[in-house]
Amino acid sequence: MEKLSHFDETGRARMVDVSEKAQTRREATAAAFVAMDQRVLAALPQNPKGNPLETARFAGIQAAKQTAMLIPMCHPLPLSFIDVAATITEGGIAIEATAATTAGTGVEMEALTAASIAALTVYDMCKALDKGIVIREVRLLRKTGGKSGDYTAADR
Amino acid sequence: MEKLSHFDETGRARMVDVSEKAQTRREATAAAFVAMDQRVLAALPQNPKGNPLETARFAGIQAAKQTAMLIPMCHPLPLSFIDVAATITEGGIAIEATAATTAGTGVEMEALTAASIAALTVYDMCKALDKGIVIREVRLLRKTGGKSGDYTAADR
Amino acid sequence: MEKLSHFDETGRARMVDVSEKAQTRREATAAAFVAMDQRVLAALPQNPKGNPLETARFAGIQAAKQTAMLIPMCHPLPLSFIDVAATITEGGIAIEATAATTAGTGVEMEALTAASIAALTVYDMCKALDKGIVIREVRLLRKTGGKSGDYTAADR
Amino acid sequence: MEKLSHFDETGRARMVDVSEKAQTRREATAAAFVAMDQRVLAALPQNPKGNPLETARFAGIQAAKQTAMLIPMCHPLPLSFIDVAATITEGGIAIEATAATTAGTGVEMEALTAASIAALTVYDMCKALDKGIVIREVRLLRKTGGKSGDYTAADR
Amino acid sequence: MEKLSHFDETGRARMVDVSEKAQTRREATAAAFVAMDQRVLAALPQNPKGNPLETARFAGIQAAKQTAMLIPMCHPLPLSFIDVAATITEGGIAIEATAATTAGTGVEMEALTAASIAALTVYDMCKALDKGIVIREVRLLRKTGGKSGDYTAADR
Amino acid sequence: MEKLSHFDETGRARMVDVSEKAQTRREATAAAFVAMDQRVLAALPQNPKGNPLETARFAGIQAAKQTAMLIPMCHPLPLSFIDVAATITEGGIAIEATAATTAGTGVEMEALTAASIAALTVYDMCKALDKGIVIREVRLLRKTGGKSGDYTAADR
Repeated sequence: MEKLSHFDETGRARMVDVSEKAQTRREATAAAFVAMDQRVLAALPQNPKGNPLETARFAGIQAAKQTAMLIPMCHPLPLSFIDVAATITEGGIAIEATAATTAGTGVEMEALTAASIAALTVYDMCKALDKGIVIREVRLLRKTGGKSGDYTAADR
Repeated sequence: MEKLSHFDETGRARMVDVSEKAQTRREATAAAFVAMDQRVLAALPQNPKGNPLETARFAGIQAAKQTAMLIPMCHPLPLSFIDVAATITEGGIAIEATAATTAGTGVEMEALTAASIAALTVYDMCKALDKGIVIREVRLLRKTGGKSGDYTAADR
Repeated sequence: MEKLSHFDETGRARMVDVSEKAQTRREATAAAFVAMDQRVLAALPQNPKGNPLETARFAGIQAAKQTAMLIPMCHPLPLSFIDVAATITEGGIAIEATAATTAGTGVEMEALTAASIAALTVYDMCKALDKGIVIREVRLLRKTGGKSGDYTAADR
Repeated sequence: MEKLSHFDETGRARMVDVSEKAQTRREATAAAFVAMDQRVLAALPQNPKGNPLETARFAGIQAAKQTAMLIPMCHPLPLSFIDVAATITEGGIAIEATAATTAGTGVEMEALTAASIAALTVYDMCKALDKGIVIREVRLLRKTGGKSGDYTAADR
Repeated sequence: MEKLSHFDETGRARMVDVSEKAQTRREATAAAFVAMDQRVLAALPQNPKGNPLETARFAGIQAAKQTAMLIPMCHPLPLSFIDVAATITEGGIAIEATAATTAGTGVEMEALTAASIAALTVYDMCKALDKGIVIREVRLLRKTGGKSGDYTAADR
Repeated sequence: MEKLSHFDETGRARMVDVSEKAQTRREATAAAFVAMDQRVLAALPQNPKGNPLETARFAGIQAAKQTAMLIPMCHPLPLSFIDVAATITEGGIAIEATAATTAGTGVEMEALTAASIAALTVYDMCKALDKGIVIREVRLLRKTGGKSGDYTAADR
């Protein structure tokens, strides 16, 4: 079985040393889903003066840049691209976030952090109507680049 | 139907003005669940040199303090207490986060942010074994204090 | 003549001690103007999928919360309200930012920082078309609350 | 006419993907002017114990490092040099800020952010004497490096 | 023997709940000493264009505001005053930092963080001459306010 | 005698321009010692539910990432590795912190900042028992890489 590289031989959490890893382009996409009932979805304003889902998008983009400050074992690294999409779908709002870098380590956590914070921002703006809104299925959809190879999540 | 206080009359997202709200004690507890299969759970080291779930706890506590930097319409406020618990349970790791303040607005977002970042930290430390780990059911469990009254989530 | 309270008797910059100041509601509004020619203004997209001036608004709101991190002699304080408006007008984009607190010191710098960063965000999004865009007239429009009394800028 | 690269085909603000851009040395210099009347300028202490314009310089340098946290569509990147100068001139204080990097994108926003925050810091330290101080002409003076070529602002 | 309030009954580190503590004025002063030999001290520039010890002072003031972000079990709180002094003395540079708040918990950590970062800033500016510079005796000098009473360090 | 590269010809503190420096692997290790008497050391909980020294380790790792935000003349740079060890020894707790990067400048300040903040975190968790705890001997142990050559501190 593979080793958990974030722990040393004594079980102590640690940062992985990526000094020797190749500086290649790496990209990751993550998703989150904010489940809310029809009543709340219908109350979400949508108009030319500023679609409120934009707030969630910007929050997600800014959060991706903060990832290493938030996740202890993450490496601070430059990011060459971040995008977050928030779409109203059946039963809630679907978030999808992508991050890219040219660095010695991947950006899965940057994509997941962007998706999570965008989802929390949607919750924040809707909680006056329904505190029971739930964020579901925060997960990695796919990653490319790096030695560990590409990954694509199984369908759900 | 109630109004979405985070949007103005034109549908533009905005921060709620809490200048006139009473400075009372407010507390909120949120949960998140990191679903992982038995193989990964069994690989998590647990020993006297440093239980790895501690990393997630600290990450959650520190993230709660960053909430207003992460969630655009949140007010920056002092916090009188933050705690995060991470427990290995059937099918994954259960996170529970509590925040408290004496201020003019609630701390639901602080509790939810702490729970989310703690869950992402668990993901980060386990992703070498399974990139398919999913964070589920990020939600508010209960809140007390403030004019909008107490809230307790329905059982699941 | 009044004293410059941000300097001690030897001329050294210092933070003013506000421990004894009354905790009252204080509000400030600041403005900035991003001057750009008609060609660039016409190129700014405006549509239901997300008015780009929203980006500037959110950047300004988030920057207000960072004021004490940015301006050395500013006190970190809770904010009860922040709002930023960005409006296309003759010759450019007018920014207006308001901040409020209940604290022992004013929020002029929070309003000015929000206006400045919102203006810089507009520059960032338009600089591909015209690097010669200029930010003009970053200034305090009015403040209320606090011992030093209310202030309203003279018309221009 | 050129495209506004910060907006997608639907007019949504977005970050430009710089993954494929060459990592070359890029430098930018920006200016700001803090207009104040002679009375305030004369009151500024200048002595061996600490020239107060130093406060503005340090604030500008530190702000340049925060640029990507403040301007949503900016990429987080390493900086190889930052300098800020603050000079008392006829009618006010002239700020000039320079930033440099070896990266796939330019540092105009870093230079402009440094200049803006340095100017706001001057305002903060002088506002006890005159709240009507205005920050004028925040603008890019020149940039070098990168595919879009060099730029030098026209004289004023 | 007194209890270590930062640990729960199972020995787990935790934040102390200060919700019920009185909001009173609290102040703390801390010191640090940067030991360096006469050769380095003599090389430190001191002139009207900007005493370099100012850099250390500003770094310390800004660091005090970041204390809760840096020290996990510290509460984020407003600060009503911060000051840092850096003085050339026999054998090195003496740092003294003071912080004050009106809050439910003390500011010892804010004063200690300010003193530590100011000392590190001095090291940074002198390390080109002597990497063997040592920071000694980072300690609390005194605190006032709060239920635990006043404290004054014994002479050394 | 060597020049103090952090000051210009007029004695003004400045950031060193590292644009032309080679991007090579650089590593630095720093130490700090938290002196405390036997009574406090004995009270430190050590158990499987979470060794409290872990709090100090995580605080140090996270602080290393904040170095450029804290130390004015430090360059923001990616880090490929950070580790902090905290060990109970005779008379106190010994901290050792290592940072590594592949960049145009060294990481001494990152290692020293990590060691200092880890030491302050230990102080914070023990100050309820003894406010007289002192942090001693914050110093660079060794560095490798870069043009200025390797460095190893003399024994003490």
